[in-house]
Amino acid sequence: MGRKNRAPDQIRELTLERRFTENVPGSVLVRGGKTVVLCTASLEDGVPPFLMNTNRGWLTAEYSMLPGSTKSRKARDGRRPYPDARSLEIGRLIGRSLRAACDFSKMPGRTIWVDCDVLQADGGTRTLSISGAMVALTDACKEAERRGWLRGWPIVSPVAAISAGIVRGEALVDLDYSEDSNAEVDMNVVMNDKEEFVEIQSSAEKGTFNGGQLESMLGLCSQSIREILELQTKVLAD
Amino acid sequence: MGRKNRAPDQIRELTLERRFTENVPGSVLVRGGKTVVLCTASLEDGVPPFLMNTNRGWLTAEYSMLPGSTKSRKARDGRRPYPDARSLEIGRLIGRSLRAACDFSKMPGRTIWVDCDVLQADGGTRTLSISGAMVALTDACKEAERRGWLRGWPIVSPVAAISAGIVRGEALVDLDYSEDSNAEVDMNVVMNDKEEFVEIQSSAEKGTFNGGQLESMLGLCSQSIREILELQTKVLAD
Amino acid sequence: MGRKNRAPDQIRELTLERRFTENVPGSVLVRGGKTVVLCTASLEDGVPPFLMNTNRGWLTAEYSMLPGSTKSRKARDGRRPYPDARSLEIGRLIGRSLRAACDFSKMPGRTIWVDCDVLQADGGTRTLSISGAMVALTDACKEAERRGWLRGWPIVSPVAAISAGIVRGEALVDLDYSEDSNAEVDMNVVMNDKEEFVEIQSSAEKGTFNGGQLESMLGLCSQSIREILELQTKVLAD
Amino acid sequence: MGRKNRAPDQIRELTLERRFTENVPGSVLVRGGKTVVLCTASLEDGVPPFLMNTNRGWLTAEYSMLPGSTKSRKARDGRRPYPDARSLEIGRLIGRSLRAACDFSKMPGRTIWVDCDVLQADGGTRTLSISGAMVALTDACKEAERRGWLRGWPIVSPVAAISAGIVRGEALVDLDYSEDSNAEVDMNVVMNDKEEFVEIQSSAEKGTFNGGQLESMLGLCSQSIREILELQTKVLAD
Amino acid sequence: MGRKNRAPDQIRELTLERRFTENVPGSVLVRGGKTVVLCTASLEDGVPPFLMNTNRGWLTAEYSMLPGSTKSRKARDGRRPYPDARSLEIGRLIGRSLRAACDFSKMPGRTIWVDCDVLQADGGTRTLSISGAMVALTDACKEAERRGWLRGWPIVSPVAAISAGIVRGEALVDLDYSEDSNAEVDMNVVMNDKEEFVEIQSSAEKGTFNGGQLESMLGLCSQSIREILELQTKVLAD
Amino acid sequence: MGRKNRAPDQIRELTLERRFTENVPGSVLVRGGKTVVLCTASLEDGVPPFLMNTNRGWLTAEYSMLPGSTKSRKARDGRRPYPDARSLEIGRLIGRSLRAACDFSKMPGRTIWVDCDVLQADGGTRTLSISGAMVALTDACKEAERRGWLRGWPIVSPVAAISAGIVRGEALVDLDYSEDSNAEVDMNVVMNDKEEFVEIQSSAEKGTFNGGQLESMLGLCSQSIREILELQTKVLAD
Repeated sequence: MGRKNRAPDQIRELTLERRFTENVPGSVLVRGGKTVVLCTASLEDGVPPFLMNTNRGWLTAEYSMLPGSTKSRKARDGRRPYPDARSLEIGRLIGRSLRAACDFSKMPGRTIWVDCDVLQADGGTRTLSISGAMVALTDACKEAERRGWLRGWPIVSPVAAISAGIVRGEALVDLDYSEDSNAEVDMNVVMNDKEEFVEIQSSAEKGTFNGGQLESMLGLCSQSIREILELQTKVLAD
Repeated sequence: MGRKNRAPDQIRELTLERRFTENVPGSVLVRGGKTVVLCTASLEDGVPPFLMNTNRGWLTAEYSMLPGSTKSRKARDGRRPYPDARSLEIGRLIGRSLRAACDFSKMPGRTIWVDCDVLQADGGTRTLSISGAMVALTDACKEAERRGWLRGWPIVSPVAAISAGIVRGEALVDLDYSEDSNAEVDMNVVMNDKEEFVEIQSSAEKGTFNGGQLESMLGLCSQSIREILELQTKVLAD
Repeated sequence: MGRKNRAPDQIRELTLERRFTENVPGSVLVRGGKTVVLCTASLEDGVPPFLMNTNRGWLTAEYSMLPGSTKSRKARDGRRPYPDARSLEIGRLIGRSLRAACDFSKMPGRTIWVDCDVLQADGGTRTLSISGAMVALTDACKEAERRGWLRGWPIVSPVAAISAGIVRGEALVDLDYSEDSNAEVDMNVVMNDKEEFVEIQSSAEKGTFNGGQLESMLGLCSQSIREILELQTKVLAD
Repeated sequence: MGRKNRAPDQIRELTLERRFTENVPGSVLVRGGKTVVLCTASLEDGVPPFLMNTNRGWLTAEYSMLPGSTKSRKARDGRRPYPDARSLEIGRLIGRSLRAACDFSKMPGRTIWVDCDVLQADGGTRTLSISGAMVALTDACKEAERRGWLRGWPIVSPVAAISAGIVRGEALVDLDYSEDSNAEVDMNVVMNDKEEFVEIQSSAEKGTFNGGQLESMLGLCSQSIREILELQTKVLAD
Repeated sequence: MGRKNRAPDQIRELTLERRFTENVPGSVLVRGGKTVVLCTASLEDGVPPFLMNTNRGWLTAEYSMLPGSTKSRKARDGRRPYPDARSLEIGRLIGRSLRAACDFSKMPGRTIWVDCDVLQADGGTRTLSISGAMVALTDACKEAERRGWLRGWPIVSPVAAISAGIVRGEALVDLDYSEDSNAEVDMNVVMNDKEEFVEIQSSAEKGTFNGGQLESMLGLCSQSIREILELQTKVLAD
Repeated sequence: MGRKNRAPDQIRELTLERRFTENVPGSVLVRGGKTVVLCTASLEDGVPPFLMNTNRGWLTAEYSMLPGSTKSRKARDGRRPYPDARSLEIGRLIGRSLRAACDFSKMPGRTIWVDCDVLQADGGTRTLSISGAMVALTDACKEAERRGWLRGWPIVSPVAAISAGIVRGEALVDLDYSEDSNAEVDMNVVMNDKEEFVEIQSSAEKGTFNGGQLESMLGLCSQSIREILELQTKVLAD
């Protein structure tokens, strides 16, 4: 039962490489199995119009897949009339998740831009983006502190994310692309270090799921997110 | 405790007016409290490229808010360089939810287009869109049957949707705009008539939530969706 | 001779339902036969750049057809690279017509946004939009007055509009879609309550017309517009 | 009374220079006073999708103003997210007017593309475009004939166009920019060589007009269009 | 050997017609053989954001081909979702070349807009645009001087441009379209009146070239550009 | 004289890491000093419309900079109405350069897509893209061979590229960003393994250059390109 090379509750090998590039204060290459995402965090002096004249800061996130990240080449965002709706949706999810980790009254009048660009896609790109961007965001906050932009440390509760699914009736965590293609249900969970939920997105295009299955998936995710949060802490201590 | 005019587990008055317009086979004006959405379903002979030469049909959904639907006028989709990312995201949710209700092998080579246009917004537009569009979709399938396009009835399990949230610590179902603005957590649930989950989307930008709160909200939604499914059945029997 | 159910000079049954929605100060559902348009009017504090630092107000109008308003689904504005040229053109006509009714020196520094969204199309959508929007505009001016934004009543001469055409050699007023499809000539006329012309647009793609036919059509329109102006006044008195 | 240098019923000096460029079969530089428009007509083997498998041809027209055509530089179409709504509207008018001159059953399966590009604008660009493009269209039809694409001569009734307006209470034909800016009413008329109307567009944003004024303007236009049709014939005889 | 009607080092007949249109201060119709380009230069009070609060002026150039400029009609910029990449690229080249001729500290806070619109294309449109726009730019500077916008004459070193290529092994200057289509190598050179290079662009999609061939082409261009600079001077003296 | 850490004719440390990602047949991470570009090459069965029914293949290239690649965040292509003109221009240069290396009669009916995405920018991104993409292209051709898509080896003459410039009067090869910002002249050269030129682009926005300086820069580039071609060969032999 289960899958060949991993236990149902075992996530793929996860690495977080800080300072992968140097031009921006936060730059993390995150690898989860064969999925590879470059997460960068830039600082901007200023906030969007709706926050002008408040004493708050902001965080905006964008997500995109490089054309060569998939087996069948993905048409490039920006060479088509419209941006890809899925990319916009995932960028919004990443932004909400990371904002839930922050207290923006501590960074008045400044914006953090987070960019997650998928270099190689093998399932789980959105959750990996969140887990990696959390580290890039932390590095960017350190730079903001160095510049004297902060009124206290803005990260109140780090977040991490993972996916789970029901494949042939069994709950599995951290689906790769081939598992995801066969999943009856696909779920993405974001939690913080207080074991609170930040986002739950569960969709069942090919099947449906009951309360018990929901509970199994949430349990798997919850445990894995604890592991990822620990890894983030360890990597940030280096 | 609770809210002034409704019990925590009580949805707003819901009406489904079939045949609101006549040019398309399915046309339902759905009202939930002060939120009003026009849901139409059109038939098209043909399928998107990725389904050509399969024996399947398809359903695509689009969502938009009319400029006058909100107190502060909303810039019109189509007069800006890009479509609104939130609108695209909700259209994708509606599409996935309704597709989960159908068996497309029963409608080979045909597409149903579902359009949900919000005439007045007071919270819950996306869930109301799903509950209303389910009825419009059913009427469109009847027309498809009349035209001899079907190989059996394609709706295997009707769906309905509702929102819930935690407001000042208390779980409430079917938030209106003012409740939604004050909610610590906001959740949208889609379920079918077998009490199975189709979609769960829960987001906590202003707060976070724990397992108990999740359970409370799911319980409220689950009960309300049963009521809505009954109303759909009743309305379709007329 | 003539048409089956209506005299050549008889317009379709026309109703103007005020306060159809509540979020905006002017909201009128106008029905002319089977054509249904929702006309809303919103208020904005501010004017476009070209009027900054003048003592004038402004009115802008936009027009669109909902995808389900036509028998063959109309691709949604905002999901295509460009807005529909016909929609832009009609929006400009509606704007010019309504501005001719107003004295903007009475509303310095404020803008009225008029939106006409066609819910069901059966010919005459642009003229019906003007006749309905005139009422929504009046309601919006009442709200502007209530807010103390006016320096006198800005509506100097209400306008209404109707179409006429030559079908099989005969002049008919208020063409429905099937008449319009068979018309040799199609004409739209906007007039005010002083029996003055505001706009005349006459086009003869399938045929041409002479001075006598022009006169017949103008006569029919002129009489019908008087009726519509009376109905507007009556509805606004409620 | 009247204007300084021209009688009220006198059009500006009009010249039509055929074969201004050589790459396309029809190329006419039309000058009316200081307004200069380059009208070209190209042939295409094929028709738009909606005419496939009919035995008809088609004509499409586009209009644009060069950035340097106006005193205050006009932002270039194609360097902005959307085409200019006024340009689209005028292109549609030119297309309808020229199509009214043709019998497309004589040119099955072929399309004529008409392009009107304003090199210098001083009022009357849309009517001058129509009058000039009619000649370019005729030259293109000659080339189509030479290629053996025709089943008979497709031009059944040449068209020409002119503007008129009410300026300080007086009806004037062929307004230049400064007259147009002061006009209470602005009217564009397209007629054919049978003294039939093809298009009438009359708009009164700054004032309104009565039946007598309409008649005066139509009279002026009608006489001027006869003159322009004669000039077209003369130029085409060279 | 060589080409039929011209020596290898002979450019096509070149004419520069100043004041071709009147609405803008610089307007030059340049003809080189059958290629015809209208170059206009407009003045704007202001500079782009990146130059705000400096004491410098700026020059921006745009290039476009009219739809009827080519034998096979070119789809119009501004009726497609994106501007044409080749047009953008050439506009950038024209801008860089003309900016190299100017000292913008002499024109603080003002922008010159240069527009090059190809009326007829027969090879060499980009170099002809530069040679013609240099004259239009000079006329615009004279107008800027007349307005008191200058702190000294801003043109420090006029530029001109020409193409060359290797066709059947032989170096030829100023290729027309048919020569260009057969060229193994195509080169564009911009030089100033001090015999210095401003831009060299050489591309060899169909072949490659060696140092000797490069030298031959540069020699041809260098000589021709001297001739063009002389013509510019002569024309500007009128 | 010269620069601190490198001789004038010394390029920055260059590494070519093949198989950086696995989903596409060619994937090379190229690093030149601090500039990092991911070059991928994908295979597609089919050719663009203009090559249909010929016996040829094709290669298309696109270039983009990730938002976090620069110190001041670069707005993402695809979140703006238009793609970046500079990106389009560089994509065209890369495509022409690589096509010059190939004989497409050997790959009838197939297209290679090359994508160059800049992860970190420190000058020389376009030349580094070409040098890296040449290796990715070679790997993609090997995969095409494995699939039986080839009629002989399509790469006839590998290409590489480098930049040079005049900084404070001295010719330097392979400018980094700070050198490039101070350069009077900037030049990009593409050559093949037969010491032939493929592209020369030289621009002098801030200064100008004479024949001697051109020769110096070409000499530097020529020597460095030989070194890069050797490195490519060595890396491909692994």
